[in-house]
Parts: sequence; C-alpha cells; structure tokens
Amino acid sequence: MEREVQMSGFEQVRDLVVGTSSKIVLLVIDGLGGLPDPATGLTELETARTPNLDNLARVGSCGLTRPVGPGITPGSAPGHLGLFGYDPITYNIGRGVLEALGVDFDLQPGDVAARGNFCTIDESGNITDRRAGRISTEESTRLCSLLDGEEIDGVRFIVRPVKEHRFILVLRGASLDARLADTDPQRLGIPPLAVAPLVTEAERTARVTNEFLRRGAAKLTEARPANMFLLRGFSERPSFPEFGEVYKLRPAAIAGYPMYRGLARVLGMDVLSTGPRLADEMDVLKQNYSAYDFFFIHIKGADAAGEDGDFTRKVAVIEDVDTIIPEITALAPDVLVVAGDHSTPAVIKGHSWHDVPCLIYSHWCRHDGLSKFGESYCRTGGLGIIPATDLMPLALAHAQKLIKYGA
Amino acid sequence: MEREVQMSGFEQVRDLVVGTSSKIVLLVIDGLGGLPDPATGLTELETARTPNLDNLARVGSCGLTRPVGPGITPGSAPGHLGLFGYDPITYNIGRGVLEALGVDFDLQPGDVAARGNFCTIDESGNITDRRAGRISTEESTRLCSLLDGEEIDGVRFIVRPVKEHRFILVLRGASLDARLADTDPQRLGIPPLAVAPLVTEAERTARVTNEFLRRGAAKLTEARPANMFLLRGFSERPSFPEFGEVYKLRPAAIAGYPMYRGLARVLGMDVLSTGPRLADEMDVLKQNYSAYDFFFIHIKGADAAGEDGDFTRKVAVIEDVDTIIPEITALAPDVLVVAGDHSTPAVIKGHSWHDVPCLIYSHWCRHDGLSKFGESYCRTGGLGIIPATDLMPLALAHAQKLIKYGA
Repeated sequence: MEREVQMSGFEQVRDLVVGTSSKIVLLVIDGLGGLPDPATGLTELETARTPNLDNLARVGSCGLTRPVGPGITPGSAPGHLGLFGYDPITYNIGRGVLEALGVDFDLQPGDVAARGNFCTIDESGNITDRRAGRISTEESTRLCSLLDGEEIDGVRFIVRPVKEHRFILVLRGASLDARLADTDPQRLGIPPLAVAPLVTEAERTARVTNEFLRRGAAKLTEARPANMFLLRGFSERPSFPEFGEVYKLRPAAIAGYPMYRGLARVLGMDVLSTGPRLADEMDVLKQNYSAYDFFFIHIKGADAAGEDGDFTRKVAVIEDVDTIIPEITALAPDVLVVAGDHSTPAVIKGHSWHDVPCLIYSHWCRHDGLSKFGESYCRTGGLGIIPATDLMPLALAHAQKLIKYGA
Repeated sequence: MEREVQMSGFEQVRDLVVGTSSKIVLLVIDGLGGLPDPATGLTELETARTPNLDNLARVGSCGLTRPVGPGITPGSAPGHLGLFGYDPITYNIGRGVLEALGVDFDLQPGDVAARGNFCTIDESGNITDRRAGRISTEESTRLCSLLDGEEIDGVRFIVRPVKEHRFILVLRGASLDARLADTDPQRLGIPPLAVAPLVTEAERTARVTNEFLRRGAAKLTEARPANMFLLRGFSERPSFPEFGEVYKLRPAAIAGYPMYRGLARVLGMDVLSTGPRLADEMDVLKQNYSAYDFFFIHIKGADAAGEDGDFTRKVAVIEDVDTIIPEITALAPDVLVVAGDHSTPAVIKGHSWHDVPCLIYSHWCRHDGLSKFGESYCRTGGLGIIPATDLMPLALAHAQKLIKYGA
C-alpha cells in the first residue's frame, strides 16, 4: 500500500527517521481555520486575543496547511490523518470503525462496524427526523439495549450507544463483508433504504443485516422518542503502518472526544484517559510527559462552535487554548506544533476547504516575526502553503530526528 | 486514462461534485502574465489602470498559477487544459485536431488532421518565409481550393482555410495513423521535410501524405504569394472525460478565436456564437446567463499584443478587460475566476513559463486585502502559488459544489 503513496512526506521520511530522546507536542485545534466576520474583516483566530500564540508566531515558523487537496473539505478523519503524515486519499477509514474505536469497543479481526443514528419515521414509514431530535445519551442507551444481542444465521449483532442519537452496530461472525451501502438516504420524507450489497461477496452480510433491520424496527415500533434507526459507514478495521513504528516515536494521544481516540488507536498510539476540560488534558500531559516522546493533544471546542455558527464562542475557545500554551512550553518540548485538521468557519457552520493556520516552535526555527497567529499572517509565513502531510516531516526535522538524505 | 492522473485535482474532486444551481464564470485573459518594463519595474498588468480587478483582489483570494510545470512554457491548449483541471501532461491534444475543431470542421472518427502553413521557398526549394508574409485569409482560401480534393490510394485529402496563412489538412480513409512527424523544420534556408512515420503502423499514411505533398507542391509552383506549405501536429480527435460530466456543470464557451472554441468543443462544452469584441462576448454572456452554470470566456488580445512585443497595447487590452468586470459581477455569479492560460511578456514576444496571476471572487473567500491585481501582489495571496489544475477544484468549492471528503 505504501508504494502507492506519491506525495506524502510519510514515505519520504520513513527511511531517514532515527529514534532520539527529543519530544514533540502536536496540539490540534479542531476546526481552527475560519473566515472573516463581515463587520470586521477578521477571522475567529484573528479576532481572538492570543498573546501566547502570537508570541510563538513571532519566534516560530508559520504557514497554512492544505488538508486533503485544493477545494476539498475534509471530514475529521482525513483531516487528522493528513496532520499525522498519512495521505488521506490513500489511507481511508470507514465511519463505522472510527465510531466503534472511539467508544473503546474492542473490534476483533473480521468484525464489521457501522454507525447508527436513531431517527423518527411517520405512519407511512417515511423519515421525519434523521436524528430523532438529538435524543439524550440516556435514552439512546435504553434503545440500544432493546436492539442489542440478536443472532441471525450465526452472526451476532452487537449494539452500543455512542453519544446522543448515535450508536454503533458491530456484526461478529464468519465470512462477513463490509461492502454494503448505507441505509440512511440523507433526506426526509422517504423510508430508510434496505442494506444493499456493493459486491457479490457481501450478499450474505446484507441479507442477515436486513433481517436485523426488520427485527429491530419491530422492537422500536412503539418506542419513544425514536422509532427507527439508520446505518451508514459499514467498514472493517484497516491495518495501516503504525505511527510509532513509522516515525520511531512512542506516541500518546490526549483527546476527550471518542472519534479522535479511535483514530489514534488505529494508528497504534497509546490513548491516555482524560477528562473533557483543557485543564484535564494538561494534567494528563504533565503526568505522562516522561513516558512518551510524541503527544497528540486534541481540542474539540473550536470546531463545535464553528459548526454551531457561533463566531463569538469559537473566539472564546481559541482564547482559552491560548492560556494553556505556557503550560506546554514550560515542559520544554523540543518541538511544539499548533495546527488544525481543517477550517470550520462560523459563517459556513460546517467544515470547509480553506487552508488552516499552523506553526512550529522549536530551537531550530527561522523566526517568522509575525505579529499575530492568524490566517492572513500565516499566509506569508516561512512554512508556506503546504499539504498537511508535510507537517510531520517538518516536526521531525525540527526535533532533529531525521538524518541526512544522500551523501 | 483518468486512472493514471495522480496529482490533478480533477480526480480527487470527481467523486465529490454535486450539481447545484450556483454559477461560475471563468474569465481567461490569454497571455495575462508578463515581465517588467525595464524603465518602470512594472509588468503589463501592474502598469494597467484596473480599478475593478484591483477591487476584486482586495476582497477576493489571489495567487499565481503554474500552468504545466516549473519552467515549462505552455502552448495555448495545455495552458487552457490546466485551467479546466485536466492535467496537461496526461491530456494531450494534437495541434491539427485543435485547428480543425476551431473552424467547425466536422471531424469523423478515424480522420487525421494536421495544421498547415502556406510558406515561400526559393528556386533551390529552401524555405524563405515560414508564413509567406502572413498572407490574407482570402488569398489563403484561394490556395486551399487548389490543394483540396486529392484522393490517393483510397484516402481523401480535405483542405480548408483557417486564418491568414494557416489552413487544415484532414485525411479521411480506412486505417490511417496520425503518428507522423512535422514537415515544418521550424527554420529558414532548408527545404520542408518529408513526412516521416513515427511508428511502423503509420508508414502507409506517411506514404500517401508524401504523395499529396508532391502533387500539392507541383500545383503551387507558380502560385503567389505562397508557393509551398508546411504541415505539423498530425493528430486524431481524443476522447477526454467531458467537462460537464466530470464537474456536473452545464458549461458554455464564449470565445472569438477558433482554437479556443475547438478546445471547448473537445471537452463537450456548448460553444456560443460571438462577435470578436469584448462587448460582443458580454452580450452573449448576458443573453445565455440563465441557460448555463459555467461560462468560459476567452479574451485573446493580451496574448496577441504580448506576442507582438507591444507592451503598451497589452496594457491597453488589460485596461479594456477591466471595464467589463462590473458587467460580469452585475450578473452576480457565485464565483468569478480571473486567470490566464500562460504568460506572454511583451519583452519576450512569446509565451513564457512564468506563473500567472489569478483571483477567485466569491462570498466564501478569505479577503486577501491586496491593493492591486498584479504578479508581485498575487505572489503573497491566499491561494498561494499553485498548479493551474488546482483552480477548478477551488472554484467548485467556492461555489459550494463539493461535498465533504470522509467522515
């Protein structure tokens, strides 16, 4: 598989990496990039008071990362894979697998995982709300226990709650095949689709899953507040080259949100337990600082605020993140990278394709001398406008973990 | 063929495009990029008074496009294919085919087309002028009728005038092969070359074409003002993925010059009839605005002035183009892209490899805040210095025609 990767820094650096005692911290502010508030012409990051990040932008090297490709809006997984140096086009992870790993579900070889949404349908069977009003996790947990535990033709159907209306379905049994189409039609006013096999080999898996759908629907007929469910992202756990092995690092992930823990686990990172607050993540970092030499710290709030279209809250999250920067630099990592997996401009209320500010702070940086950490400043930074996959090789280089190429 | 393209945005976006009602206008100023007037240090574009383009550069996103690759000077076709998102190395169109399509010649499957130039030779048969003093189209038409209609070994030789000294030769018959070398030696003082087959399969086609050359030369011996002709760009019509299908757009081309209409037709665009003036092209745009959602508008004058080494006239053409910008923005397209297919610096008197200024104007742009649309300004723009093939994915993204990649 690696031979197919043409453009990733990943393959270029693999033979040059050496294990050292130097440490790298990668701080990912989810959805960091933004668009200007029409009233001020400033993005969320440019609006935020960020004296500590601004200081890093002055003495560090800045740039903009292009997550997947020009014009392409990444989902969370491709956005992160790029930052980790894995070309997101080549290294593709199904949604079901990510969700399952994110709730610490112990996927076995051969398991097929799908993401589920509880939804509502009317008397005619047509979908009226694809998320059932985002029901509470408690209600979802109760409904999951109704669906869980079916066994059909030797296949066990395991159902576990995730968060709000979301759950995972895991099929366990012999000869399963994940090449199945979604049942979620992604629109209202029509019934959920039957599970369709995308290849002949998946016909049996489709048949047993359709029987599970039939039984599940019957159990939920009288249920409230959701009376049906939708499945998507059928997938099997991929086997990617391990992050720690590729880069000769002992990597740890500190992430409060399930999917990012799951993603880190797929790459073989140690996932450290953490509370949801920034202070929790900092405590975990400090407690484990001596045990690892690479830390992926994930901060979700900026993306969530952007998705909600809340410019002011996104600004506030970024200002909060700024306050933890001194705690990280006090640990004196050899390299601190501050980056985002994609842009989530509040004015778009969703992910976008726009390039994302990033900075590298290390003893071996050229000093960009920027007065502010922000999109329009980073555009002129010394790192340039680069594919996100360039960031890991640059981090390794600044940590002096890459030997010379050629004589 | 498409599977071989690794780096073009084309392939990455193909699965992400959705049809919407939003509209994109791509205004191509042929040969837009320039080099400084030594007296002022300003390029043609920087010298021109362009208040409307400058305004777009302030509120839009700017950059420089690299047409084919570093240091590579593109012909008109590769320059445009890049702007359309087709990697110009992979998607190659012969000159003969382009010329034939540009004069609305109805190429049949299996036809072989070549571009012809009437030229002059001396008594020894050596070329004295490769363009016969750019004879008039009327004279060229008369000479074409002398050559037209030969039939040799079952192959028909069709000759049609193009413009001035240029014509097309189309071979029609069974088992033709276009893999033939040019007869134009691209220099003076030597005779035209014989047609040489590049592969064994093309030997018969070479033989009948050489017989056509012999008969044609005999007919022109006493002709004035040209007494010989040169052939190049033997080619068959390629079958590329259709632009409208790839991008889920209804595309229209507005171009006054034959080759660009031909190129648009190869990509399956509707080619709208237009007069030669900017005002004609604007009328056609307005009249057809509701019927399409992508408009390729081609403006030739800047390139022609650059080729002639006329800095002042190129400045004037660019200033004229600036005046039509408000007419386009008044239509309120979701995305306006202003770009060039390559640079044609007046000081070089020909195409060049230099990167080309471009801008994207849309509601979803970061504001670059540049004070001027020009080479040295665009260099610091938010789009960066990008392959020309990046422009279409970016235009589609800003028109919100690309769905998210991955979960």
